[in-house]
Amino acid sequence: MLSFENDYSCGATPEILDRLAATNSTQFPGYGSDDICEQAKAKIREACGAPDADVWFLVGGTQTNQTVIDSITPQYAGVVAATSGHVNVHEAGAIEATGHKVLTLPAHNGKIDADELDRYCATFYADGNYEHMVFPSSVYVSQATEYGTLYTKDELERIAEVAHKYDMPLFVDGARLGYALTATGNDVTLADLARIADVFYIGGTKVGALFGEAVVFTHHGEFSGTPRHFLTLIKQHGALLAKGWLLGLQFDTLFTDGLYLRIARHANETADRIRAVLREKGYTLTFDAPTNQIFITLDDATRTRLEAGVRLGFMEQADADHVVMRICTSWSTTEAQVEELLALL
Amino acid sequence: MLSFENDYSCGATPEILDRLAATNSTQFPGYGSDDICEQAKAKIREACGAPDADVWFLVGGTQTNQTVIDSITPQYAGVVAATSGHVNVHEAGAIEATGHKVLTLPAHNGKIDADELDRYCATFYADGNYEHMVFPSSVYVSQATEYGTLYTKDELERIAEVAHKYDMPLFVDGARLGYALTATGNDVTLADLARIADVFYIGGTKVGALFGEAVVFTHHGEFSGTPRHFLTLIKQHGALLAKGWLLGLQFDTLFTDGLYLRIARHANETADRIRAVLREKGYTLTFDAPTNQIFITLDDATRTRLEAGVRLGFMEQADADHVVMRICTSWSTTEAQVEELLALL
Amino acid sequence: MLSFENDYSCGATPEILDRLAATNSTQFPGYGSDDICEQAKAKIREACGAPDADVWFLVGGTQTNQTVIDSITPQYAGVVAATSGHVNVHEAGAIEATGHKVLTLPAHNGKIDADELDRYCATFYADGNYEHMVFPSSVYVSQATEYGTLYTKDELERIAEVAHKYDMPLFVDGARLGYALTATGNDVTLADLARIADVFYIGGTKVGALFGEAVVFTHHGEFSGTPRHFLTLIKQHGALLAKGWLLGLQFDTLFTDGLYLRIARHANETADRIRAVLREKGYTLTFDAPTNQIFITLDDATRTRLEAGVRLGFMEQADADHVVMRICTSWSTTEAQVEELLALL
Amino acid sequence: MLSFENDYSCGATPEILDRLAATNSTQFPGYGSDDICEQAKAKIREACGAPDADVWFLVGGTQTNQTVIDSITPQYAGVVAATSGHVNVHEAGAIEATGHKVLTLPAHNGKIDADELDRYCATFYADGNYEHMVFPSSVYVSQATEYGTLYTKDELERIAEVAHKYDMPLFVDGARLGYALTATGNDVTLADLARIADVFYIGGTKVGALFGEAVVFTHHGEFSGTPRHFLTLIKQHGALLAKGWLLGLQFDTLFTDGLYLRIARHANETADRIRAVLREKGYTLTFDAPTNQIFITLDDATRTRLEAGVRLGFMEQADADHVVMRICTSWSTTEAQVEELLALL
Repeated sequence: MLSFENDYSCGATPEILDRLAATNSTQFPGYGSDDICEQAKAKIREACGAPDADVWFLVGGTQTNQTVIDSITPQYAGVVAATSGHVNVHEAGAIEATGHKVLTLPAHNGKIDADELDRYCATFYADGNYEHMVFPSSVYVSQATEYGTLYTKDELERIAEVAHKYDMPLFVDGARLGYALTATGNDVTLADLARIADVFYIGGTKVGALFGEAVVFTHHGEFSGTPRHFLTLIKQHGALLAKGWLLGLQFDTLFTDGLYLRIARHANETADRIRAVLREKGYTLTFDAPTNQIFITLDDATRTRLEAGVRLGFMEQADADHVVMRICTSWSTTEAQVEELLALL
Repeated sequence: MLSFENDYSCGATPEILDRLAATNSTQFPGYGSDDICEQAKAKIREACGAPDADVWFLVGGTQTNQTVIDSITPQYAGVVAATSGHVNVHEAGAIEATGHKVLTLPAHNGKIDADELDRYCATFYADGNYEHMVFPSSVYVSQATEYGTLYTKDELERIAEVAHKYDMPLFVDGARLGYALTATGNDVTLADLARIADVFYIGGTKVGALFGEAVVFTHHGEFSGTPRHFLTLIKQHGALLAKGWLLGLQFDTLFTDGLYLRIARHANETADRIRAVLREKGYTLTFDAPTNQIFITLDDATRTRLEAGVRLGFMEQADADHVVMRICTSWSTTEAQVEELLALL
Repeated sequence: MLSFENDYSCGATPEILDRLAATNSTQFPGYGSDDICEQAKAKIREACGAPDADVWFLVGGTQTNQTVIDSITPQYAGVVAATSGHVNVHEAGAIEATGHKVLTLPAHNGKIDADELDRYCATFYADGNYEHMVFPSSVYVSQATEYGTLYTKDELERIAEVAHKYDMPLFVDGARLGYALTATGNDVTLADLARIADVFYIGGTKVGALFGEAVVFTHHGEFSGTPRHFLTLIKQHGALLAKGWLLGLQFDTLFTDGLYLRIARHANETADRIRAVLREKGYTLTFDAPTNQIFITLDDATRTRLEAGVRLGFMEQADADHVVMRICTSWSTTEAQVEELLALL
Repeated sequence: MLSFENDYSCGATPEILDRLAATNSTQFPGYGSDDICEQAKAKIREACGAPDADVWFLVGGTQTNQTVIDSITPQYAGVVAATSGHVNVHEAGAIEATGHKVLTLPAHNGKIDADELDRYCATFYADGNYEHMVFPSSVYVSQATEYGTLYTKDELERIAEVAHKYDMPLFVDGARLGYALTATGNDVTLADLARIADVFYIGGTKVGALFGEAVVFTHHGEFSGTPRHFLTLIKQHGALLAKGWLLGLQFDTLFTDGLYLRIARHANETADRIRAVLREKGYTLTFDAPTNQIFITLDDATRTRLEAGVRLGFMEQADADHVVMRICTSWSTTEAQVEELLALL
């Protein structure tokens, strides 16, 4: 059946499969200590305009969030995130499993607000009992957010500024970073991110790879570079892939000739076409978001009608008679799939 | 200086000091395996009307919350609490340090609502992604709450009913249980609690003891009795007192001749007198609460004036010009202290 | 350069790459809820002669050990393993990171002894202070071991018997299970393992897959079936692959037409050839082991000479002048590579 | 019945009970922020000859070991201890519960050896796979040890030297420090300890207090001072006593007029008398130890005979017919008790 359920329902870009086939008999050293990984890291540093950044490859998003947050957040402290943040909602308590509380701020279309972050911290440190409370000691945001929305460069800079004011590194979950970088209206480049964030990752799983997330530790100010013995921390969190070159190879491919951005842009353009039709036909878009995720509020009858022909993602019950559903395009969405969906709408 | 800052600012009831002196040279076996502990447990079981309950002694409240919640909550799961719950706010992340998320419900004067708990769980299990989320698997409430308010018997029964419907034990934090049991209007007895809750504790630290909390695991339905190897779990959490008889001795004393309730009632009566004067003089009581904690909303000038003569507890900034302060009586509050406070008001 | 460094230096069996290419555009539901995973699980159950076993797919070995052990070991308890066990030595503390102590028994060529396990537990429970100690509550063995040796069926049955006597599930790390099942002299079949162990896994990473380990929870006696909400536990440990069908597809391929055993047998036969030459030429084999790992004790000069031509694995310093090195064959070792190595020897 | 079972079977020195009675009605601020705590800390600093040391009060030994080790050991790392170390054997996995492996060295009469520590670390860092292993990152020793033996100043200095060479702070468990400081032949003073160790504690529970351990963070070299937000870490570990002045008051008493050393010396002298008789009568002393713990190896008949008249501590089965038992004196041992014991022997 036709599916717009999520952006990780297909394998990988053909270029990656070709590279896998071509290198299948080559013998590589393990755990990412191979040349392809080095080459991929160099390309990512170049794409980030950050020649001194440290790049690490992990397998999946929750794993990456868990390993990074546990590594950058002191043991007496928690990480600040939007109530809607993936780490707060959909990671089965992976952050708490490593001992850290997720401290939540209100989500505004999936985004936290720098002023609210500032007030949160100011209130915290003004509290006579703050030593009995969980220190806010790192900040987590998603770009694009879980609702497909984007932070502007100005918003991210403000958040970073407040974060640093209170001695917190800023961590950007980029599981869908490709779709953010190439969305209409986006003004945050990879180089901006490398300049603003202390650590972020470039999602592969949802943007053309079989799996893989590239973590970038940047070098500025207090939170400069990679936490000590990060390889050991990756291993300890069960996140070190034996055949590490598989990760390097995928990212090397994605960061050759602009492939990563090209396939991401395709997903956004496809989503834009669908959004235009949805608006034209009077559907209610739940969020005004420019990336590959489209959230629509449907009455039950319409939901039933659509789900007869296409798999969509169920988000939540909006009220007694309405639900929020997600239409998700991806790098692999085909023209035929779009036509079939538009016909259904 | 005069202090109504909290209810743990003095030593212990004289009866306890006398017992300490009388037994000081007696040799006891360690870790609570002594006769006084057994005798104290028997008295607590009797006071609870629960002849088959298991009683354990720990040193402090956060320690008890951490040890109990970690023991009754499966590792894949979290504990539900009010946003204002002590475990959520003032325990420095002790719950998360053991791997469990605190899942919050709105606090209504410090209390959670059974219907909201029901909806929370219903929504959770209706979510297609609930296996990626933190299961609500135990429920924490405080009696009296952190705001001095009380659950009625009916409210507790409803919460227990919903908790059990969703396979969750109900845990009652009774750090201030004495003040709850003896408050005007309270309709929840120790026996009720032992019948309704799956596990609760009787606070000593704030009600007449130097330190100590008596945990009671009750026996009904699915969550019957003490978690396996609970003594080892206490030890593992660093909560096993070497000279365990000190705990037994204190609770034995408190549960002899009704001492526990008598000294708690004194604190409530004292608070009632102060409340009456506050109302008479037009002070704003922040919460309508019948126990030993009185919260008042003060303008800055009044705060300054009062704090010149008495130490109060600072709770939070209410708005730009007002704060919420706490006046706390206790088992040890003297007539002279009350007079001095009333004069200041 | 020629490499016999480890058994995870190449991609995957060509059959797997073909399947990846053939299904690359197919849309699958996420997280292993797809049909290929179901089909692979059915084939594994069949191969195990265990129609009611539960099968789960994870990405890597340390991750699997961490997730399984944390799930089957009570929170007050530890896991028993050989001092040389992977979980004790080479997982960067992944077990302890989840709160469990690794309790060690002597390693006899990598293996624990059932009688020693029995004595360990008997001594434990005879100790008056055992409630202050870490309970032995699960048993971990590797088949093949980290030294390439094998447990006999009788040995495993004895260990299981002792484990069950003391209320411990037996967990078998099968990262190299293929090489065990097909070794000369092995008498433990997959069906034996499913009958003897409470949970084990079938390693893919080291036996023909790009990555992947198939965990099998068997159904007998007290430790029947999968721990509750294991999918959530996998997610919480950061071990849930978004594109779960990639795991199913690989194991489906490996368990079609006996591929898994066939490629494993190849590695063993290759190792046997090398072993014969080593013996012939007077090399010292550190362990008498029949699987794909060959450990040799070399003087420094010989080491230097060999390492000029081939990458070997360094194990440990044997004494001031000797080292233990590992020659590792695998499913992917070619005739040409063997010839080249033999020439070097 | 007469008991020489342990050194924590009685209440407290009378001076402490008197102070408790005298201050019982005084109102103190909570959590150790009172003047008596400050005064006690000043006296401890003075006794240590360490005017810039940081002093903290916790309730019990396991709790202190857990909180300190978790605070000084990086999350990727473990703590090195003797196999016989309390943290390795008798704390129910409290260290592992916070995520850290206990890395063991052989115990020589309860002590580790500096050269073995050196070799352990050298071997660790020489291993090509050390990034996959648990880093040794702090060192734990007990003074006196669990077997009543003592490190000499020279031994401690050598251990500290090796520890610092490998970037590890040295932590000394002083649960029985009083008995070490006053033992015949001891050459390590409090000032020596403050100069050599990075952090240590002065045990109160076993030396005259109802409960309490005073942690001293010293200031030298790399590991200077208290870990950041240590009060919050204490709270998070459930180890912060509400009525903190009870700890200050006890240590203030113990460190007034040499009381701590005086009562500890009494226990040692008593033990010396018992040791002399034991030797005279041909008993087998298991260890040659000068402090308040006497270990004797008994045949079963003698054990039965003795235990008819006195409670002793059971340590372990020595062989089929012999056990190791402990005779423990303490600050509270009376002349009458000694006489009664000697008559029994």
